[in-house]
Amino acid sequence: MPRPLSIDSLRLQEQIDALAAISEAPPPVVTRVLFSEADLRGRAFVKELCQQAGLKLHEDAIGNLFARWPGKDGQLAPIATGSHIDAIPNAGPYDGVVGVLGALEAIRALKRNGFELRRTIELIIFTAEEPTRFGIGCLGSRLLSGSLSPERAAALSDTEKQTLEQWRHKAGYAGRPLNSVLLPKGVYAGFVELHIEQGPLLEQENLAIGIVEKIAGPSTLRVQLTGVGGHAGAVLMPERHDALLAGAEIALAVEQAALNSGSRDTVATTGVFRIEPGAVNSVPCRACLEIDLRDTQSSTRDAALLRIEKAVPEICRRRGIDFDVERLNMDAPALCDPALVSTILEVCRELKLPAKTMISRAYHDSLFMAQICPTTMIFIPCRGGVSHRPDEYSSPEQIANGVLVLAHTLAKLTS
Amino acid sequence: MPRPLSIDSLRLQEQIDALAAISEAPPPVVTRVLFSEADLRGRAFVKELCQQAGLKLHEDAIGNLFARWPGKDGQLAPIATGSHIDAIPNAGPYDGVVGVLGALEAIRALKRNGFELRRTIELIIFTAEEPTRFGIGCLGSRLLSGSLSPERAAALSDTEKQTLEQWRHKAGYAGRPLNSVLLPKGVYAGFVELHIEQGPLLEQENLAIGIVEKIAGPSTLRVQLTGVGGHAGAVLMPERHDALLAGAEIALAVEQAALNSGSRDTVATTGVFRIEPGAVNSVPCRACLEIDLRDTQSSTRDAALLRIEKAVPEICRRRGIDFDVERLNMDAPALCDPALVSTILEVCRELKLPAKTMISRAYHDSLFMAQICPTTMIFIPCRGGVSHRPDEYSSPEQIANGVLVLAHTLAKLTS
Repeated sequence: MPRPLSIDSLRLQEQIDALAAISEAPPPVVTRVLFSEADLRGRAFVKELCQQAGLKLHEDAIGNLFARWPGKDGQLAPIATGSHIDAIPNAGPYDGVVGVLGALEAIRALKRNGFELRRTIELIIFTAEEPTRFGIGCLGSRLLSGSLSPERAAALSDTEKQTLEQWRHKAGYAGRPLNSVLLPKGVYAGFVELHIEQGPLLEQENLAIGIVEKIAGPSTLRVQLTGVGGHAGAVLMPERHDALLAGAEIALAVEQAALNSGSRDTVATTGVFRIEPGAVNSVPCRACLEIDLRDTQSSTRDAALLRIEKAVPEICRRRGIDFDVERLNMDAPALCDPALVSTILEVCRELKLPAKTMISRAYHDSLFMAQICPTTMIFIPCRGGVSHRPDEYSSPEQIANGVLVLAHTLAKLTS
Repeated sequence: MPRPLSIDSLRLQEQIDALAAISEAPPPVVTRVLFSEADLRGRAFVKELCQQAGLKLHEDAIGNLFARWPGKDGQLAPIATGSHIDAIPNAGPYDGVVGVLGALEAIRALKRNGFELRRTIELIIFTAEEPTRFGIGCLGSRLLSGSLSPERAAALSDTEKQTLEQWRHKAGYAGRPLNSVLLPKGVYAGFVELHIEQGPLLEQENLAIGIVEKIAGPSTLRVQLTGVGGHAGAVLMPERHDALLAGAEIALAVEQAALNSGSRDTVATTGVFRIEPGAVNSVPCRACLEIDLRDTQSSTRDAALLRIEKAVPEICRRRGIDFDVERLNMDAPALCDPALVSTILEVCRELKLPAKTMISRAYHDSLFMAQICPTTMIFIPCRGGVSHRPDEYSSPEQIANGVLVLAHTLAKLTS
């Protein structure tokens, strides 16, 4: 490296703030649901910044954005980095964004430094890491890695029965078919994702950096319940088939399945719970639940999943409710690449930044990138471990540490 | 009566169908929430029909519409009839509407017949019988009867924090203050509301007419729960304060409170259950429940209510959830006027229509009109007892029977 790398923390923070202001809801709330007007404006903002940094852009048929800094040796597989900018309703400014705008700052820092690449660097902004619109997360990286078939993806539909294919048309990505998104294994020599921890451990242990060895595998269930509606005054209690009450029992069974899995790492959440008609004087006739279940081990997670899938018919039969249970996804945990992990640990030692290896309980596009290339993640602390909330926060210094580690890692991997 | 009354069933059905088509949702769903564009168009449609029938119109400051057929003796207190046209989301065409358009057809039938009124007839179309927007039903009749203070009404707010006062301005009813809505006791000599039963009894017993002796008293609770959100992957189970799970336990406690009240007439329903942020990978941080509780006796209902109000803090303390419980309304059951009930029973005998007296489990504007004048209701059968659903149905013949009984009753009371 010609001279020490310096991170422009101020500019990076301004860009993070500017992107946070591009939201479907007023500040401090960040909401950028896939292909919403805010999501599209956010994409345009990032593209503009990538162009200003001199990167070459292309987008694929699901809207994954690739921003390339070509290396001298075109024969070598590139090193990739990146994350996502979509945000669930009522989210904060840092989840995903730090791995996009931070990686861009890492690239700018290397360029300012006069660093010469042998191997190409590719910054990837993945489409829809969050599962908000279709109940399934990591749409972009799933399709890119072959973990989701183009046929299944095209048929995904949102609560308004609009399909992914219709949304893709609306957003202007339908020029090519979805099957063109798939990338061959080995297309990248490695993938490193910078991300906030979304958990409290780094902050509690006063560490600057976490390097991810393992990513918990998520599975998602959608449970649809159909009972019998009616007037809340006129239908006597013994005659009821109330879809909400079946849903309430199921949500509590989901909690019990995680608490009794035998592993403290099993977590289960009913995050979506919608009822119809949703009027105070009407017996709920329908309920739709979406359930997220994760663990660092497939065995305990899958046992909890089976327990939930067994509880649903028991509850519904007793209450006279029709039900439909769909496994939206069921992904295996991922092991990260030990060589990449060692490289980053070494970078941290050189930079004198306190670091440790850790497990990611949240899942990420890295879970799917791990299927096509050596992968790991760089975590930075976030206040109180809080994420997916407007008060999500990492300090400019904490972010700068992560960006510096990423920049040095990219330099090592591409020189 | 100069000659037998005849009901124009065909015209009435056309008008019911035309009003059903004025909806926020596509057919067969009827949705007309208070002061929505569909509600305002529905009001305009009814006003036009009233004018065509030669009635004199005025509206009060909450949008209650009064359509008057003046009698010869202006000194006599009028007889009132009427109902509502607002509809909960995903409702059907008959609830309320039969008592508005049916009463209008009864008036037209009397006019066609050459009937001469001594006492004035006033058709009232009440504002917001359904509690959809503000969580409290019978806004118009509550204000008119003094059961709700203008101050409390003005401060009611919907889920978007828009107050009733703001909505009243938007809808164009804010020319006069809300306290001008109140009517003095005895302003009407009687009130008779025609309505579908919203229960299965008349159909099961093959009866044409039910005459209401008692109306069940409703009470409504709003329970707001605030837990701690977070990432569904990162927050371990023992650290959670999930607002949805507290809500699920409360909804099940509501059911138990009704089942164990000691009276088969106690019904309790959690009809509104909204969570935030409502994303599959996010622990729910907030939940809002609206609970409807009714009985024909205040004592058993209030005991169930207290049981629910006791369960909420127990559940929330155990789960570390902040809670707020608000009694939106707590109305006493109403006794109908025995003389009016007898008059209508006599009309049914004369018309040879099989009838019986009964209890209304659903509540109605009549519950509040009973506070200012002698009141009863005429029920007609509806298929399967179904209401508040798009497949709600009463046949043209069933409706015509109700209209005929109403017309003869109005004639007896005003001649």
